[in-house]
Amino acid sequence: MDSYVIQMNDSNSPPAVLDVHVSMSGRSSVPGKMKGRKARWSVKPSDMSNKTFNPIRAIVDSMKVKPNPVKTMISLSIGDPTVFGNLPTDPEVTQAMKDALDSGKYNGYAPSIGYLSSREEVASYYHCPEAPLEAKDVILTSGCSQAIELCLAVLANPGQNILIPRPGFSLYRTLAESMGIEVKLYNLLPEKSWEIDLKQLESLIDEKTACLIINNPSNPCGSVFKKSHLQKILAVAARHCVPILADEIYGDMVFSDCKYEPLATLSTNVPILSCGGLAKRWLVPGWRLGWILIHDRKDIFGNEIRDGLVKLSQRILGPCTIVQGALKSILRRTPQEFYHDALGFLKSNADLCYGALAAIPGLKPVRPSGAMYLMVGIEMEHFPEFENDVEFTERLVAEQSVHCLPATCFEYPNFFRVVITVPEVMMLEACSRIQEFCEQHYHSAEGSQEECDK
Amino acid sequence: MDSYVIQMNDSNSPPAVLDVHVSMSGRSSVPGKMKGRKARWSVKPSDMSNKTFNPIRAIVDSMKVKPNPVKTMISLSIGDPTVFGNLPTDPEVTQAMKDALDSGKYNGYAPSIGYLSSREEVASYYHCPEAPLEAKDVILTSGCSQAIELCLAVLANPGQNILIPRPGFSLYRTLAESMGIEVKLYNLLPEKSWEIDLKQLESLIDEKTACLIINNPSNPCGSVFKKSHLQKILAVAARHCVPILADEIYGDMVFSDCKYEPLATLSTNVPILSCGGLAKRWLVPGWRLGWILIHDRKDIFGNEIRDGLVKLSQRILGPCTIVQGALKSILRRTPQEFYHDALGFLKSNADLCYGALAAIPGLKPVRPSGAMYLMVGIEMEHFPEFENDVEFTERLVAEQSVHCLPATCFEYPNFFRVVITVPEVMMLEACSRIQEFCEQHYHSAEGSQEECDK
Ligand SMILES: Cc1ncc(COP(=O)(O)O)c(C=O)c1O
Ligand SMILES: Cc1ncc(COP(=O)(O)O)c(C=O)c1O
Repeated sequence: MDSYVIQMNDSNSPPAVLDVHVSMSGRSSVPGKMKGRKARWSVKPSDMSNKTFNPIRAIVDSMKVKPNPVKTMISLSIGDPTVFGNLPTDPEVTQAMKDALDSGKYNGYAPSIGYLSSREEVASYYHCPEAPLEAKDVILTSGCSQAIELCLAVLANPGQNILIPRPGFSLYRTLAESMGIEVKLYNLLPEKSWEIDLKQLESLIDEKTACLIINNPSNPCGSVFKKSHLQKILAVAARHCVPILADEIYGDMVFSDCKYEPLATLSTNVPILSCGGLAKRWLVPGWRLGWILIHDRKDIFGNEIRDGLVKLSQRILGPCTIVQGALKSILRRTPQEFYHDALGFLKSNADLCYGALAAIPGLKPVRPSGAMYLMVGIEMEHFPEFENDVEFTERLVAEQSVHCLPATCFEYPNFFRVVITVPEVMMLEACSRIQEFCEQHYHSAEGSQEECDK
Repeated sequence: MDSYVIQMNDSNSPPAVLDVHVSMSGRSSVPGKMKGRKARWSVKPSDMSNKTFNPIRAIVDSMKVKPNPVKTMISLSIGDPTVFGNLPTDPEVTQAMKDALDSGKYNGYAPSIGYLSSREEVASYYHCPEAPLEAKDVILTSGCSQAIELCLAVLANPGQNILIPRPGFSLYRTLAESMGIEVKLYNLLPEKSWEIDLKQLESLIDEKTACLIINNPSNPCGSVFKKSHLQKILAVAARHCVPILADEIYGDMVFSDCKYEPLATLSTNVPILSCGGLAKRWLVPGWRLGWILIHDRKDIFGNEIRDGLVKLSQRILGPCTIVQGALKSILRRTPQEFYHDALGFLKSNADLCYGALAAIPGLKPVRPSGAMYLMVGIEMEHFPEFENDVEFTERLVAEQSVHCLPATCFEYPNFFRVVITVPEVMMLEACSRIQEFCEQHYHSAEGSQEECDK
């Protein structure tokens, strides 16, 4: 989602603010007498809209991306699993929508946090003894994006800070900064399968820290935290009494050889807002159905935070009621094979891609365990022609028509991100083109050393 | 929409903030050494969520609404035309959704401002020579509510003010105050069919005025402004160089004896953001499809405001793609009879209700010309038992099981609002119960005068 194209601003006119002088209606107005009258038009966008800044857009828009005209474009940049048509949602999911339409029961306003019955379904789907949930613990939102927005809006005041992962999903910064909330970046360690540098994380916490954002499984890393690591994260939060926003939109999307642990199942005292939705696991990101699961067994959020979320949800009145009406069937009737097959495909593509890229001198892919992404380190010293990952990926498009996002988009230079939802043949073709590209530009360390010595 | 019930906070526990003391992990941490460590849990909702306040909820929640157990409840309070089942959407509208689902083309992410093709459809539907529109002038949103939210967010900074109607839709204040924007109320005049008191409107404008909100046709008044009046409003905006947010969600919903003029068709220089959506005219408020139409023929908003809206839309990524995919057919294929029949029903109900209430001593209904509402003045001097409209409507529920919203919800005391979307028999029954209620409580002016003299 983080890289689709904005089809706007077709016009090339400069951002002009015209001074249109308006002739005054004859009657009475004498300029001197008119209190605070503006003499000319000048309408400026608010500070908030100026501060609403998506770093991916800025980087991608300024990239010189002209694909090689003799090679068809392969885009490995778009975090939308539906674009290639090879990963359709399950027929039960579509049928559930049609049934909701036919019932005629879901056309009116729902409560702004969602129908009680739909919230009950989500609660019972995610309920487990270690992290019980009832309808009152569920708020339906317009996508996981709005879930994150509401959580940040209720937890943090301007001037406070939140801790977000580096590399990490860019929306956290976009939302926080638009609200005047500072972000501090904690490091994920590629050499430890993208586990958090816990010491550094802890060192960032101060009295103004409103929450930690933990994204597991991860975009862009495709990593999945082990239980023991999650417990250590929770211990940090508990020690400092900082609540957690768990972005679990890729929840349950882990490959067969590892296990997904919802964060809230591992803690009894840290209050957690878990954000999720239909987008990724059910492969319908456009439908904009997300949720917040409120885990607060020690009543630390209390009614105040719950009420705050309810009030904030009243601003735009929740997600589409047809999708809400379909939720029960979507959650109950989607067959296990659907999830199983999608993950099987993702794992096989991940293995394929990892294997191919690991064999390329100069690249260091990190093997993913879930989600839909894989991060690849670029040993920049072997590619002296390129300044950085942005230039590397730019040239990869120009020469090989393969588009990957430079990880600068995730505040992590010298890596690039590969989306592994593309059809297998495309994945293979892309890998072999990347190989060709790297072979053409690789300089062995000695070689570049020599060049420096001259 | 402004009065559905929040099915939340089932628990009656007090809003406790527990102080949970957390035992520290053995290792190293000495409290004195931990910079800024919070010693106990204390998570408070943000100022913004505290400021997000829906006056209707506050008033309705505190009303003592116990219906008379021997009379079935008739709710004339809910601005949702679908609740009684007598106003279904057109089959073409439902079919359009199914076709969008079957196509499989609308499951992925759309651009955050909506599919280009869907925006083209909205543009051509509302295009007219006096107010031309192209796709680039259209932004799709999650309901008209989000359209209004984005417009306010792009136009106003905290500390600025906006001018909103009294009586008026409560969301304007809710949104503005949550963003730190001041609201100033301009008066609508019941004796002039709810036209704006233009002098008073003009007197409120100062150098901090970011925009005027004009709601036409009106909730709660059911009024429709004449062309000449709209022109005068535009003249005020032009004189002071203040842009207009036109809330036209009830656009085209006017009775046969009067004409709806989109505000933008009457001005060439005042920049206007017109907000609308599918909710009311197509009778599907739950689907959350709204739009902003950017009218800026003198390029006063320029690219800056447009870009600001695009950036703000990236926070939650637009409305449900299935509804977007269905837009073309919804706009093109809904038969004229559908609109015609719905309006015919509304007008006949409005006439019925107006006629019945006008005949009741002590009540002064104002005849509506569109939308789905009718406002009724209460001559409070004839109902000395009741302090105000809130008490009047409270007792109306208690005795007659008829629920109307006190217009205090719209900042307009001593009126109440009637929703005219209910089935005709219900409308009639409600009116006769209101009559009985008024007859029982009416005191002629002399009578109450005498009482005062004692
Ligand atoms: C980590 C992460 N969180 C949240 C989202 C947003 O999800 P949604 O499309 O439901 O708003 C995405 C989408 O790519 C994501 O990668
Ligand atoms: C005047 C007015 N504007 C906006 C809205 C919100 O419309 P939507 O349901 O599309 O968000 C309403 C809903 O009642 C309304 O009455």
